[in-house]
Amino acid sequence: MKHFIIVLAAFLVAGSAWCADAPKPQTMGEVLAASKPSDWHALDPQNTLYLQIASGRVVIELAPQFAPQTVANIKTMVREKYFDSLDILRVQDNYVAQWGDPNADDAAKRRSLGKAKAKVPAEFTVPLAGDFTFTPLPDHDGWASQAGFVGDFPAAVDLQAHQAWMTHCYGTIGVGRDNAPDSGNGSELYAVIASSARWLDRNITVAGRVVQGMEFLSSLPRGHGDLGFYTKDEHPVPIQSVRLASDVPEKDRLHLEILRTDTPTFAALVESRRNRHDEWYKRPAGYIDVCSVPLPVREKK
Amino acid sequence: MKHFIIVLAAFLVAGSAWCADAPKPQTMGEVLAASKPSDWHALDPQNTLYLQIASGRVVIELAPQFAPQTVANIKTMVREKYFDSLDILRVQDNYVAQWGDPNADDAAKRRSLGKAKAKVPAEFTVPLAGDFTFTPLPDHDGWASQAGFVGDFPAAVDLQAHQAWMTHCYGTIGVGRDNAPDSGNGSELYAVIASSARWLDRNITVAGRVVQGMEFLSSLPRGHGDLGFYTKDEHPVPIQSVRLASDVPEKDRLHLEILRTDTPTFAALVESRRNRHDEWYKRPAGYIDVCSVPLPVREKK
Repeated sequence: MKHFIIVLAAFLVAGSAWCADAPKPQTMGEVLAASKPSDWHALDPQNTLYLQIASGRVVIELAPQFAPQTVANIKTMVREKYFDSLDILRVQDNYVAQWGDPNADDAAKRRSLGKAKAKVPAEFTVPLAGDFTFTPLPDHDGWASQAGFVGDFPAAVDLQAHQAWMTHCYGTIGVGRDNAPDSGNGSELYAVIASSARWLDRNITVAGRVVQGMEFLSSLPRGHGDLGFYTKDEHPVPIQSVRLASDVPEKDRLHLEILRTDTPTFAALVESRRNRHDEWYKRPAGYIDVCSVPLPVREKK
Repeated sequence: MKHFIIVLAAFLVAGSAWCADAPKPQTMGEVLAASKPSDWHALDPQNTLYLQIASGRVVIELAPQFAPQTVANIKTMVREKYFDSLDILRVQDNYVAQWGDPNADDAAKRRSLGKAKAKVPAEFTVPLAGDFTFTPLPDHDGWASQAGFVGDFPAAVDLQAHQAWMTHCYGTIGVGRDNAPDSGNGSELYAVIASSARWLDRNITVAGRVVQGMEFLSSLPRGHGDLGFYTKDEHPVPIQSVRLASDVPEKDRLHLEILRTDTPTFAALVESRRNRHDEWYKRPAGYIDVCSVPLPVREKK
C-alpha cells in the first residue's frame, strides 16, 4: 500500500491567484472549459451501479476504499438481482430516499440474500493510511478536523485519531442499519436527498455516491409515515433493476467521466465557488464547505 | 426601537447539561414534549402567505424585519392577486424552485404590477440594531462571524460591520433579481429546496421562509433548461393562488405555532441535535450548523 498523502500543492496554486498580476478570477464554467483530458477519469464499470426506476436511471459510484466488505456484499446482491422489483420504501423530505425489501422484517416472506452475507462489520471509518490521496479544502470544517476529497468522494479526516470517512452530502449512498453497528449488510440503502446530513458521519457505513440521476430520487413523492416511510395508502416506488455497469452490454452503458479532485484544475474549481466572480454576485463568500463543492461529471468525449 | 440583544444565557444552561449530576441528555422529541405553551407563538396572519399549487398549500412566513420594503411590495402584489395563475418556472435540482410571470421579459404581455413598485432597494442586510433578538449558535460558522436565529428565522451577523441577514437554508424565500442589486421587486420569488445555499447570503434580498408544505415544492419535477427552467416541452407548474392569511376567512386559515428561538427550550433542542443521544447514534457530532437546526411548527392546540 502506498502511504497516505495530503495534497496541498494544488491549493497553494489556487491561493496565489489573489496576488498582484495574478490571472483574472475564473468562473466554474471557465475552469471546466480550460480543463485538460487528463483532469478527468472514466468511471470504473466494476464499481458503478445503474439503479433503474420508472422515471430514469440513477448512476452510483461505489467506494470500496471506504467500505470494502460492504461494497463486496452489495455487488454480490446486485449480481443475484436481489434488488430487482424491490421498492423505494421511504422518502423523507430534506433527508433521504431509502430502498430495500418491504418484507425485510418478516422471516417467512423476505427475499433471500443468496450468497451475500447477512452480517457485515461496521465500516464507519477507515484508517488514515492506504492507497488513497486526501485533498483538503482550504477552509475550516465544523464537523471534523478537516474536510476535503478522496478520489471522487467528499470526505473528512480526524488527524489525531488517524481516521477518514465519507461525508454525508447530496447523493451519498449509505447503508441502512438497526441500532447495532453491524446490522447493516447493504440490502437496505439510502441516498441523501438533502444537500448535507453531516450528523450521520461516522455513525453508518457509506458505500458510494450518486454521480448522475439524483433528480429521479430527489423529486419522488414524500412518504407520510414515520421517518418518511410510505404508508399503506401511498405507493412505494418499484425498483426495476440494479445492475453493475460491467455486467451491462457495452452499448447500454453510460460512458461518464468525473473531474479528478487531486488536480490544480479541481483546486481552481473550488476557488471559483469559494469566491464567485460572475457579474451576478456582489459579495463573494470567501468560504466553502465540502458539501457545497460540485463534483463535475460529463459524457466521455 | 429596543437595542439589539444577543441571547447567551440559554446556551449556558444547555452547556451545563454536561456537568456531573446534570440531567440525562434529551432527544428532540423529549425536548418538545416538555415544552411549555409560552415556548411557542402563533404565526402572524398579517405576515403569512398561502401559496396554493395542485399538490398542496405552502405556508410562508414573511420577514419584514429583514426586508421591510420588499415584504410590503409582495403584500401589495398578493392583495392584487398578482401571482394567481402565474407559474413555477424553474426547479433546479438541489438548489431552488422559482415562480413568477412567464412573460416578465415581454413588455407587451407581462402582467401589471398594479400599485406595487417596479423598483425596490436591495435589502441584502440590515443594521445590527433594532427590535430583534439574535440567538447565536454555540458553534463556529464558516460563512459568517456568527450564525444563529432572529425570531423564526435562521440568520447570521457580521459583528464588525454591524450587519445581520437571513441565511439561505432549506425553505428560505428569496427575491429573484437580475444583475443590478435593486432589480428584484418581489414579483419573482424562489424557495431554496437544498438544505443550504449559503453562498447566496448577502447577495440577494430574503423575504421569508416556508414553515409548512416544503415537500410540495421540493418534489416538483426538475426543469431541464438552463438553471433548471422548464423547457417548452416541459410543463410549468401553475400557481392557483397566493393569499395573505389575514385575507382568508377564519375557517380556511391554518393555525400554526412556531417554537420560539430565544428560549431555554430552543437551546435544549439545539443541544439535542448537536449531540444525539438516542440509541441509534454511536457518535454524537458535537457540532451543528444553522441550516441543520429544525425549526418546529405545530398546529395550535
